Amino acid sequence: MMKSDLDRLMEARGLDAFVVTGGEGYSSVRDYLTNGAHISQGYILKKRGEPMLLVVNPMEIEEGRKSGVTTITTIELGYPDLIKEANGDTDKAAVALWGVMLRRIGLDKGKVGIYGRGEINVYLQQVEALRALYPQFQFVGENGTTLFDEAMVTKDAEELARIVSIGQRTGEVLDAAWNYIASHKVSADETVVDAAGKPLTIGAVKRFVIRELMERGLEDTGMIFAQGRDGGFPHSRGENDEALKAGRAIVFDLFPREMGGGYYHDCTRTWCIGYAPPEVQQTYEQVMTAFDMAVEAFGLSKPTQPMQLAVLDYFEQQGHPTARSQPGAMAGYVHSLGHGIGLNIHEEPRITHLRDSDIFQKGNVVTIEPGLYYPDEGYGVRVEDSFIITEQGELISITPFKKDLIIPIQTLA
Amino acid sequence: MMKSDLDRLMEARGLDAFVVTGGEGYSSVRDYLTNGAHISQGYILKKRGEPMLLVVNPMEIEEGRKSGVTTITTIELGYPDLIKEANGDTDKAAVALWGVMLRRIGLDKGKVGIYGRGEINVYLQQVEALRALYPQFQFVGENGTTLFDEAMVTKDAEELARIVSIGQRTGEVLDAAWNYIASHKVSADETVVDAAGKPLTIGAVKRFVIRELMERGLEDTGMIFAQGRDGGFPHSRGENDEALKAGRAIVFDLFPREMGGGYYHDCTRTWCIGYAPPEVQQTYEQVMTAFDMAVEAFGLSKPTQPMQLAVLDYFEQQGHPTARSQPGAMAGYVHSLGHGIGLNIHEEPRITHLRDSDIFQKGNVVTIEPGLYYPDEGYGVRVEDSFIITEQGELISITPFKKDLIIPIQTLA
Repeated sequence: MMKSDLDRLMEARGLDAFVVTGGEGYSSVRDYLTNGAHISQGYILKKRGEPMLLVVNPMEIEEGRKSGVTTITTIELGYPDLIKEANGDTDKAAVALWGVMLRRIGLDKGKVGIYGRGEINVYLQQVEALRALYPQFQFVGENGTTLFDEAMVTKDAEELARIVSIGQRTGEVLDAAWNYIASHKVSADETVVDAAGKPLTIGAVKRFVIRELMERGLEDTGMIFAQGRDGGFPHSRGENDEALKAGRAIVFDLFPREMGGGYYHDCTRTWCIGYAPPEVQQTYEQVMTAFDMAVEAFGLSKPTQPMQLAVLDYFEQQGHPTARSQPGAMAGYVHSLGHGIGLNIHEEPRITHLRDSDIFQKGNVVTIEPGLYYPDEGYGVRVEDSFIITEQGELISITPFKKDLIIPIQTLA
Repeated sequence: MMKSDLDRLMEARGLDAFVVTGGEGYSSVRDYLTNGAHISQGYILKKRGEPMLLVVNPMEIEEGRKSGVTTITTIELGYPDLIKEANGDTDKAAVALWGVMLRRIGLDKGKVGIYGRGEINVYLQQVEALRALYPQFQFVGENGTTLFDEAMVTKDAEELARIVSIGQRTGEVLDAAWNYIASHKVSADETVVDAAGKPLTIGAVKRFVIRELMERGLEDTGMIFAQGRDGGFPHSRGENDEALKAGRAIVFDLFPREMGGGYYHDCTRTWCIGYAPPEVQQTYEQVMTAFDMAVEAFGLSKPTQPMQLAVLDYFEQQGHPTARSQPGAMAGYVHSLGHGIGLNIHEEPRITHLRDSDIFQKGNVVTIEPGLYYPDEGYGVRVEDSFIITEQGELISITPFKKDLIIPIQTLA
């Protein structure tokens, strides 16, 4: 969506203005509105129909200006005097600063949406103070599909180009990790070892992957590399000290983002080193069938839900428990099929049976990630690509790496 | 502070319970209470006088149990039925889940503090719904020095040992970066070049530093490596494509944390490659004098403010504008002297002239970071170490690297 659509989204919500606030740390909405400028704090204000205004600490003025948004400092707005008037109470001064900022954007009454990421306790308190001090404004939050969820759910051509490039680089890292593992050997007790006979650990693979990501301007955000039973829990991350073993299913879920904060990629492969036990092979084939069925079920401008329903139907026909047939089950197909990605790892649209309001649109970036989990039998299988929906309305994978199960490897002589 | 002190801190605030909630992404309070377990969402509840309860998505049950906190899933609390009853409205179901959770910890009325990090708009809305549905509870936020600010401001022996180790490793990275730069040569036009004559860029140094951090289990969180005029703005990060030049002041502010989220270190060095211009040398000496004065001004159980006042007095005597003499000035000494660090990069205590309530206590971890900035004259200088206050009440630097200004380097033959 173009940022010029913000006015329309504000109008639909009856907002006369929005203020994006929040504490230190990465904020996807701040990143989105300031075009990736490295601002650690500050306010972004917009009166409907008017351009945005960025208010920063004077130390961040140079970074702020890189945003392309009109930028002023809290000093220009008289913040030091406000602190003095509040006898050093910076919370009180911050509330006074809101009044100055809202006047500055020409708002003297109306509905103000408050957005951003921060410490919930701080903002609950601050909004209470704002409401007490400025009865002429109506300060509101928003949940469900928010203004920025809606703005960010479709990506423009420039965003898509960045996102495709991240997928390209992530595919290279998958390839490097595959080759790295394949360059090892399997010892008599099925341990994967290096030339010196030293076991290859999950920690070593993760360090290798982090380095490969970094060389490509990407950063890990908590990859899963989980073997055997651990892979049977969708979110178990794997144990660093554990050595890789031949014939165990490894769930490798990699979801890096641009270094320092930016767009994500999300993909999963399941690998068996050397060979796959028959039950893992069969499960893998079912997951691949589900993956292909999901892609088949895509329809532009159609709801996302039928895609998940097709996969649920198929897995249930194969005798697997699912999150629909047995909500809360820890075995079988226990999660939803996919989600949007962008400056957040989980965005709209969702591909789930739990709600039917999500629609596939041009410019969406989504994951498709069927999986089957049997921790008590010592394995899990998941396969995931990220996809874009192009301007032509096609669903195209942007994870350019093969989905083979078995990594061929030599046996130690 | 020991987590056993939480009851006392709750009592001081009249809280019958707290709930730590919040969205995806790192949350220092969640990390603190769950001992670093990798939980991406969920709730941490505590009734005063009772142990904590962790409520997670079923997919995160294995990670949740690693916290050592009693862990149950939203499924065990009947969340799927709540979604059904809410006709798929997950926001409504979440509000119903709060009622179940509060009953589960045995609370039927009283004051509930809400904490955590997340999308402000979502929680403003959710708390409004909670207040409407559960009039028997009083849901409150908190700003100023919050319960968790107070709990986290003093570190116990185990935390301090981790923090000292991070400092050790960060010192090694400073040393490696120094040696890396020194291994280059200076060309006739003062550009720093490698053996092949290729200019050494800021981007290349940053990539080197990120790699060195990673090898030591640390991650960069946005280092500053800013040369010349850029270094004259305290928060300007430096331009990746820019080549290093001899005789320019480089402000190198490195504030890594444990990989994947954890404790921070924070330190700054100012370097000149080959030689320093007289004005930079003189400014550096004044900053070092201020640094030493600040350390001298330390007093256990004493306010932090006199430390900043001593530095302000000194810099003003030397003729520099300061944030006290000219609030909002962009030249001179334009920021406060230091801040606490921990699971957040900026914590209490603050060392600032703007408030006088902060006290130095045993177990604090703080930065001391005087600086002088003259962007129009093309330079800035800052020197910063992290310090701990030991059980014996001593202020000890934990940044083990020299503070020399000039990196010796060879001239290209």
